[in-house]
Amino acid sequence: MSKTTRDLSPIFEPKSVALIGASNNPLKYGWIILANILANGYKGKVYPINPNEDKIWNLKVYRSLSEVPEEVDLVDIVRPAETVPEHIEECVENNVKSAIVISGGFKETGREGEKLEGEMVKIARKGGMLLVGPNTMGVYSASVSLSALMPPILPKPGEVSLISQSGNIGTNLLAFGSEQGIGFSKFVSSGNEADISTLEYLEYFAEDPSSKVILLYLEGLREGRRFVEVVKRIKEKKPVIIYKAAVSRAGAGAAKSHCGALAGSTKIYEAAIKQSGAIRASTINGMLDLAVGFLYLPLPKGNRVGIVTWGGGYGVVASDSCELAGLDVPPLAPETVKEIDQLLPSYWSRGNPVDLVGLIDREVQPKTLEAVAKTKNIDALIASGFILGRAVGSSIYKLLDRENKGPSKNWTESTTKQIVEVMRNLMDKYQKPIVTVTLTTDPGILKNVLESRVPAYSTLETAAEVLAKMYEYQKNLKK
Amino acid sequence: MSKTTRDLSPIFEPKSVALIGASNNPLKYGWIILANILANGYKGKVYPINPNEDKIWNLKVYRSLSEVPEEVDLVDIVRPAETVPEHIEECVENNVKSAIVISGGFKETGREGEKLEGEMVKIARKGGMLLVGPNTMGVYSASVSLSALMPPILPKPGEVSLISQSGNIGTNLLAFGSEQGIGFSKFVSSGNEADISTLEYLEYFAEDPSSKVILLYLEGLREGRRFVEVVKRIKEKKPVIIYKAAVSRAGAGAAKSHCGALAGSTKIYEAAIKQSGAIRASTINGMLDLAVGFLYLPLPKGNRVGIVTWGGGYGVVASDSCELAGLDVPPLAPETVKEIDQLLPSYWSRGNPVDLVGLIDREVQPKTLEAVAKTKNIDALIASGFILGRAVGSSIYKLLDRENKGPSKNWTESTTKQIVEVMRNLMDKYQKPIVTVTLTTDPGILKNVLESRVPAYSTLETAAEVLAKMYEYQKNLKK
Repeated sequence: MSKTTRDLSPIFEPKSVALIGASNNPLKYGWIILANILANGYKGKVYPINPNEDKIWNLKVYRSLSEVPEEVDLVDIVRPAETVPEHIEECVENNVKSAIVISGGFKETGREGEKLEGEMVKIARKGGMLLVGPNTMGVYSASVSLSALMPPILPKPGEVSLISQSGNIGTNLLAFGSEQGIGFSKFVSSGNEADISTLEYLEYFAEDPSSKVILLYLEGLREGRRFVEVVKRIKEKKPVIIYKAAVSRAGAGAAKSHCGALAGSTKIYEAAIKQSGAIRASTINGMLDLAVGFLYLPLPKGNRVGIVTWGGGYGVVASDSCELAGLDVPPLAPETVKEIDQLLPSYWSRGNPVDLVGLIDREVQPKTLEAVAKTKNIDALIASGFILGRAVGSSIYKLLDRENKGPSKNWTESTTKQIVEVMRNLMDKYQKPIVTVTLTTDPGILKNVLESRVPAYSTLETAAEVLAKMYEYQKNLKK
Repeated sequence: MSKTTRDLSPIFEPKSVALIGASNNPLKYGWIILANILANGYKGKVYPINPNEDKIWNLKVYRSLSEVPEEVDLVDIVRPAETVPEHIEECVENNVKSAIVISGGFKETGREGEKLEGEMVKIARKGGMLLVGPNTMGVYSASVSLSALMPPILPKPGEVSLISQSGNIGTNLLAFGSEQGIGFSKFVSSGNEADISTLEYLEYFAEDPSSKVILLYLEGLREGRRFVEVVKRIKEKKPVIIYKAAVSRAGAGAAKSHCGALAGSTKIYEAAIKQSGAIRASTINGMLDLAVGFLYLPLPKGNRVGIVTWGGGYGVVASDSCELAGLDVPPLAPETVKEIDQLLPSYWSRGNPVDLVGLIDREVQPKTLEAVAKTKNIDALIASGFILGRAVGSSIYKLLDRENKGPSKNWTESTTKQIVEVMRNLMDKYQKPIVTVTLTTDPGILKNVLESRVPAYSTLETAAEVLAKMYEYQKNLKK
């Protein structure tokens, strides 16, 4: 942490949270946020505050902060914009360490809102208080099980940390990632960044040992040069994955009215991201694909990919995807061909991609994968068709159920588990990434596979993109 | 149908099917294919053939085709390549109308296989028999519930027809589409196309009233010029959506060893596809996204998109995606702004994109959508954030379950159903497409939405791409 950086732990590791604007009305965010905090089992104390309520669920409601019997680390404010500076004043008076201003109606709405925002920040800074937002969807932190979020989401705890300049995109990434089995350590919807900026969150997450990968949904920045320096430093410790939005005229216009930020020239951002050594995701959800890649795959030491598929078409598209992503699909070494000759029918492809020609024999698959993984001129593997969606197999099960015979209904699940463990072991043994492509987007399937610390992607294009970007990152590290 | 085109109905509407190579061993395709045919409830008669078996399940097994008591429309052959010409001879002798040669080991393996393939085709053509494959994963046809496929899949019946030059990619599209609620009318894995070519299937599907949209996974073609003519003609009746694979050197190499086809120059294909008026999908699964768009959305009459979202970030990325796809995001007409002023809090975006600023009120959403849909300078809508993944809401439900109060557990489902019906009605009323973005890839969610004939996409980028390509198609129609 640089000397000028403040300690954000009151926000991400609070021992107590108060909610100003807590409500008994389920259609108000003062109700939903409290529900989220309680439902997620927050480990600290919770103090709902509202002068007109006595009880919400079984919790005592306090009339004001000053009534709360202990000092509060974090206050959540869900009250109309014009009342917020007063509440911040109240926080300062009560030695509150930090606040999340959920409320909108500040800088993003024009001059008056901007003035209000300035006033609020002045009070907070004078009082030595940290301020998230305003116009934020909140904060999540796995270490204290805090889900102070507007949308009703229970994120899965884990090692990915996310800074989002859009609340809905950020919380959706949390929901969507959790659905797929991706766990999160810390999350912040940075809102208008009136006090704490994206850079400050970045520096905090960089020092946080429970954040192994940092994701950033970026619309605009105020300090471009410092951003490059900071990310350059961070990336030596952990990957920073960025999705840059507002890259078009229409998008930049929308961003301006959304968070009040000037998006700036796309070319300048592109150059800055590249220079910083951050990994740029080409789609929003692509950030999650990259995150699990960096979490679970060994970094590829070169760009030469071996492709093993359950059929020819997958091989064609995997080859296309690799070449278009800048990866190489080299011929197999003669000794590898010889080895696989012993495993597959005579009409196999006898080259890279290796086509398993629809072979059902589950004994041969691990051996073929290993034959390719151990080859010296191969740095990474793409394995496609090994993991099947739920729709595959359904007809057989239906029939077998009726006839009461044959392999068990769990055939798909048990064979998936077997082959995924083989992949994990081969990765550990040869220290080469094996990317598996499921060709289903069923989050349940992806989740099962991820539990064995094997990233599974739904498309071949994604697999190639992840490998290419991991290789690029690895090259940048050497510099 | 052109005069030179043969009638392929014995393949897609057979009254009886025989399976040469039927087996009692669940690890053989002679077992799996039979299981698929039976499990899917094929409407015709099924004759398993194997000289060494008496019974498979409760079906009598015949020693040879000549023992079968009636004429057979379609024979499925799952026997070693070198025996296939003999079996085709047997088919011709028994007046069989068509055959699917599942077996591999022909042209794709080299000279000898090519010779064998030529021999086989010669016999079939002399006998006036149609031949699918060889080296194919089979055929599906909804009208007779025929699932003569190698992988155990039960496709959902519907209106999309698919020709695939890769069996695994084709059958995976069937499985994956069905998972999402997309129904198929006819499917063929065209294999080596020794007899029937992609073009012949295209012409047949063009005339088939139950095929509303045609998808083609294409690696290579023999008759480029005729292809352009044929597709040009078809596209006036129904859209032809193409994914072109083997676009890189590595991919073309893989394709050669896979189906024995020369992939040819990428630029020539690009030009031919463009000239033909076919719609080109940029990813394999993108074919399905386009298919449901064409099935359920009115064609956009212009490229001006109104964006309605549940939050600012979605608006930024939707705007980016539209502009990058060549669509326009025009300002809202003053009267539309005025109308929405009556619906949303004063701090709404007051422009396009329309940001619902996280409003929970489900009364306002339909009104806002309609205000934008009826505007004259808007040709299409993107609506994002209205449909939530399963992960969203889970915390609230968890708490409410415990407390036994509040809105019901089906809240997400019932509100989804309501808003989807609103979208369907607005589309019918104003004849403008409304594309909804779920920001989840959960096939269960997408399936629920599709049941109301509303396409839902998991990313904003996809929504923009589908609209842009539908607009392009519409423009081409006018020519």
